[in-house]
Amino acid sequence: MLRRQPMKHKWYGYTGRHIRIDLTNKKIDIEENNPEIMTSYVGARGIGIKYLSDEMDPQADALSEENKFIFATGPLTGFPPAGNRCYVVTKSPLTGGIANSSVGGYFGVELKLAGYDFIIIEGKSEKPVYIWIDNEHVEIRNAEHLWGKGTEETEKMVLAETDSYAHVAEIGPAGENMARVANVITGGVTAARAAGRGGHGAVLGSKLVKAVAVRGTRGIQVSDPKAFKSSYWKFMDYWKNPTPTCVKGLSDHGTISVVAWANDLGILPTRNFQTGVNENASKISGELFEQKYSIKKGAQPGKACFACPAACSRMGRVDDPGFEGASEGPEYESVASMGSVTGMDNLALVMKAIRMCNDIGVDTISTGVTFGCAMELFEKGYLPEKDAGYDLKFGNGEAMLDLIPKIGRREDFGRLLGEGSYRLAEHYGHPELSMTVKKQEFPNYDPRGVKGQALAYATNNRGADHCRAEVNCSEMFECTMLGYWSPEKDVDPLAIEGKAAMTKHYQDYAAWAFDSVGMCYFLLMEALEQDLADYLESVTGLDFGGLDGLMKAGERIFTLDRLFNLKAGLTGKDDTLPDRFLKEPMPEGPIKGQVVELDIMLPEYYKLRSWDEQGVPGSDKLQELGLET
Amino acid sequence: MLRRQPMKHKWYGYTGRHIRIDLTNKKIDIEENNPEIMTSYVGARGIGIKYLSDEMDPQADALSEENKFIFATGPLTGFPPAGNRCYVVTKSPLTGGIANSSVGGYFGVELKLAGYDFIIIEGKSEKPVYIWIDNEHVEIRNAEHLWGKGTEETEKMVLAETDSYAHVAEIGPAGENMARVANVITGGVTAARAAGRGGHGAVLGSKLVKAVAVRGTRGIQVSDPKAFKSSYWKFMDYWKNPTPTCVKGLSDHGTISVVAWANDLGILPTRNFQTGVNENASKISGELFEQKYSIKKGAQPGKACFACPAACSRMGRVDDPGFEGASEGPEYESVASMGSVTGMDNLALVMKAIRMCNDIGVDTISTGVTFGCAMELFEKGYLPEKDAGYDLKFGNGEAMLDLIPKIGRREDFGRLLGEGSYRLAEHYGHPELSMTVKKQEFPNYDPRGVKGQALAYATNNRGADHCRAEVNCSEMFECTMLGYWSPEKDVDPLAIEGKAAMTKHYQDYAAWAFDSVGMCYFLLMEALEQDLADYLESVTGLDFGGLDGLMKAGERIFTLDRLFNLKAGLTGKDDTLPDRFLKEPMPEGPIKGQVVELDIMLPEYYKLRSWDEQGVPGSDKLQELGLET
Repeated sequence: MLRRQPMKHKWYGYTGRHIRIDLTNKKIDIEENNPEIMTSYVGARGIGIKYLSDEMDPQADALSEENKFIFATGPLTGFPPAGNRCYVVTKSPLTGGIANSSVGGYFGVELKLAGYDFIIIEGKSEKPVYIWIDNEHVEIRNAEHLWGKGTEETEKMVLAETDSYAHVAEIGPAGENMARVANVITGGVTAARAAGRGGHGAVLGSKLVKAVAVRGTRGIQVSDPKAFKSSYWKFMDYWKNPTPTCVKGLSDHGTISVVAWANDLGILPTRNFQTGVNENASKISGELFEQKYSIKKGAQPGKACFACPAACSRMGRVDDPGFEGASEGPEYESVASMGSVTGMDNLALVMKAIRMCNDIGVDTISTGVTFGCAMELFEKGYLPEKDAGYDLKFGNGEAMLDLIPKIGRREDFGRLLGEGSYRLAEHYGHPELSMTVKKQEFPNYDPRGVKGQALAYATNNRGADHCRAEVNCSEMFECTMLGYWSPEKDVDPLAIEGKAAMTKHYQDYAAWAFDSVGMCYFLLMEALEQDLADYLESVTGLDFGGLDGLMKAGERIFTLDRLFNLKAGLTGKDDTLPDRFLKEPMPEGPIKGQVVELDIMLPEYYKLRSWDEQGVPGSDKLQELGLET
Repeated sequence: MLRRQPMKHKWYGYTGRHIRIDLTNKKIDIEENNPEIMTSYVGARGIGIKYLSDEMDPQADALSEENKFIFATGPLTGFPPAGNRCYVVTKSPLTGGIANSSVGGYFGVELKLAGYDFIIIEGKSEKPVYIWIDNEHVEIRNAEHLWGKGTEETEKMVLAETDSYAHVAEIGPAGENMARVANVITGGVTAARAAGRGGHGAVLGSKLVKAVAVRGTRGIQVSDPKAFKSSYWKFMDYWKNPTPTCVKGLSDHGTISVVAWANDLGILPTRNFQTGVNENASKISGELFEQKYSIKKGAQPGKACFACPAACSRMGRVDDPGFEGASEGPEYESVASMGSVTGMDNLALVMKAIRMCNDIGVDTISTGVTFGCAMELFEKGYLPEKDAGYDLKFGNGEAMLDLIPKIGRREDFGRLLGEGSYRLAEHYGHPELSMTVKKQEFPNYDPRGVKGQALAYATNNRGADHCRAEVNCSEMFECTMLGYWSPEKDVDPLAIEGKAAMTKHYQDYAAWAFDSVGMCYFLLMEALEQDLADYLESVTGLDFGGLDGLMKAGERIFTLDRLFNLKAGLTGKDDTLPDRFLKEPMPEGPIKGQVVELDIMLPEYYKLRSWDEQGVPGSDKLQELGLET
């Protein structure tokens, strides 16, 4: 049991403490947070980049002892509605820049209730370990017996050894073997939630950390209970009165309903993004899932995350040998990447592939898109069949099912697949066929049909990504978030005017709101920014400077991510898209003929950010944000 | 693995199957439900009494091999919102009549997803066992190593031996030792939910069944998904727009807020119901809990039951040796029984006592009221100190904390306490001091201040009870349920006019709705009856005859419970209240001077039910309900 010092500051919303685990020296410390850092960086993603850039050299190898790994909650984690997010922040072995990923479920809530806002893991263990946190008790435990196990088995074994009421985050074999597309899973396969993007699993694997288990029954306090309750009902109200196409769809059908939707808009990435129209979309659709594979046919939800009225997740099952039992999802991004990008047209195979990815612990987006890339390389004759070991044409789901476990074991062609599509395509001399930004694979909205999102893809600090600025919410989902779209006022997804400002606004808002407060952003889609600011201040009792101060905090977080990337060696040249989106017009469908006019949007965006033409923030801006060095 | 036969009927809402476990012959069968029985008895409580009265002799000893024990879900169990109820039905060792209790959490949902609507447990095992249901796999396992363990430890051990994602219902030592106030717990102490009333734990104990563990990943289907979704949003809407005093209070403060409320109305049972005004109410109040013991100060919820937007439960902690860690609740009924009825004025002690009750597995209402009875016997000089072993005056919490484990072990004075207050008071020659109906202890609304509820107490088949007809919801909670109360139209809790009809209506509605559909009745409080009928038909695709047919089903279920009681030997003479409520005017407070005019209400009630003056249903009525023999 660790001695916790009395705290200097009285904390609300936050617990006020964090754990530092030095694996090299087997040293565990409990430290009090600095209130000034919390108001400047809010929590979760913000706190992660602040500590990471203060404490490590961005040029260090992501898989070396010098990298650090941070699990961080936000001040609203643990509170309803939907305060269930935990962030993982580290230097990415995939992009070489900042990696931050968010995960729902219950892990972050448990950490918070154990009395900690975040955990900093540093150094490297000599042998496989897992970390067991039971309120005051923090322990580094041997994990040799868990090494090599899938996520589901790992989680169950850890629960059996610790406390069946604990929650666990773990890596699979892919993380152990440092595949650059490896992720961190909580909930095993059955209730899988992934901190998916950027290769976090490989970093934990490099440190020989198999899992972190937490049991928390300590308290958290609200500063102003009356204001908190009024905020609670306000957010429930946002949930109750959604615009039909956005929030309501999440609860009615889950995210998989987006398959049909994206296909109708002509932006469903198909066969490595060669087209946005998939003639087989109905074979991997939400409707088919509902009919054939959902374990609650005609009814939602599956397993909800903590305190979530949306319950967007589903559970499905495919009753084939080796796949007995239900498993989480599938989610839209997983289905589109593993199904449409690879040209698969068999939802049962797609579901099996996703389940295998969750068990070996790899990001379904990066893995699916890497398969898509390998298939295009194969079909174009750049990838020899003897290397792949399979007739790797688009749609060969059987080959995928064979190859996924090999990614986990880093075996045969699985080794190259685990490196991600950029390294794969480069290996075969055709990096232009890698659908990536900053070496990270695209999510599933073809940028040619959502121009603001395209700019966000190009400029998001963690690479091609839809969560750090969901401009597409306004462009395709009729989401009232941030006020760009309203029932009276449409947003033209193909227009480029105003998209630079929109992208900047979304990025800064996401940085403090979606990514740092700890509430799931699906619940924030219809909410007014001011209401979230009020909620945050009523819970924490801290002065963030109101909405203006928080938007400034968002810009600060985004910019600090950028500075980390620049110091790590990335440059303005990395703010780009594959030629496929810049030069190859969409061949068919509703957005036939479209390319992304990035050359027009990017300079405008740099200017709005007060960055120079090389994409380097100006010193005035850094001073304004308190980031001058 | 059991072979499941193809089913004759296509089932929606229901899974269509149930398990029969014959402990004597170690025989397990899977049987298909009879659709006609389902439409006549709906599910859960209705199905329980139907099978129980068809299959056992009501005169059999409740603790003998001849008794049966049924776990039953309803057709809406497993569906949102709040479809989380599981019923346990058996002959009560406390009352000698029917016992049915409901429990939330996740156990019923898991059973449903395993593919079963209910389980019938019959016979008696030779040695301690637990039952493990993993979808098709149903197994009787040795439980000798679990015998004697508390509920929390039992649950954790069973989870470790089966599947950490399973859900478990278990008994504590009190059930093993057949204390008549023993209950069935799911969630251990940490997330305790109890099927509390009537001594179910003793029946499982008599059969040597320590626990039932279930893991389910099979499916359930909805008949009309479109109608289902519309119902879903309708019920969410009821939740979102509650009348301020009723539903909203559950989420804002949890049920413990009722302490202050009941005290203000002068009906908070104090010192064995000698008065309804507790001068120390503020020392056991929701406000104090919130300030000192809630693990989320100023914020809700604790641990929600499956798919519940209300999340009325709380989690609290008392940081004293032996009580480390947070535990569920406390709920109003537990606090009032263990705190106010016993004259305790220390919330920390009350919380400890409740936690101990959950761990040994006894009903907090019956246990608290039995302590209150013992204390009055003691103070009046009827119970010698050498018998009690303690100076058992009102408010002696330390004695209670010492005695509770002895109830579990059936040791010393704990043996008599475990028999319930009626047998205790009778033993000392003063049965009039037992605050019971049909030997079951009162919940915490003094009948002198809620006259309709008083009639319900007298006539509910399972004895003094607030859940089988919550007339008090209209009388004190301004609940719009069933249309008696509205913002324009008040209900006078002290009036007796119309209360017979109200009680009958509530009882019949509760029987099919609250108690048989599988949804938590807190979510139904603001809902229109017709909407629930529509919801039920859209999920199941069965024809229940609309709302009229369902109200008839409710009357059928209630009447079959009554017939079971009559055959078991109970008579109209048992439809009464202790003299305290009939003859002793409330001594103080807002309802000073009140007694219950049961002699006026009861004959009117019998007439409305078409029962004769001895409370026996007439043959026309039985014929009308299809219950003629």
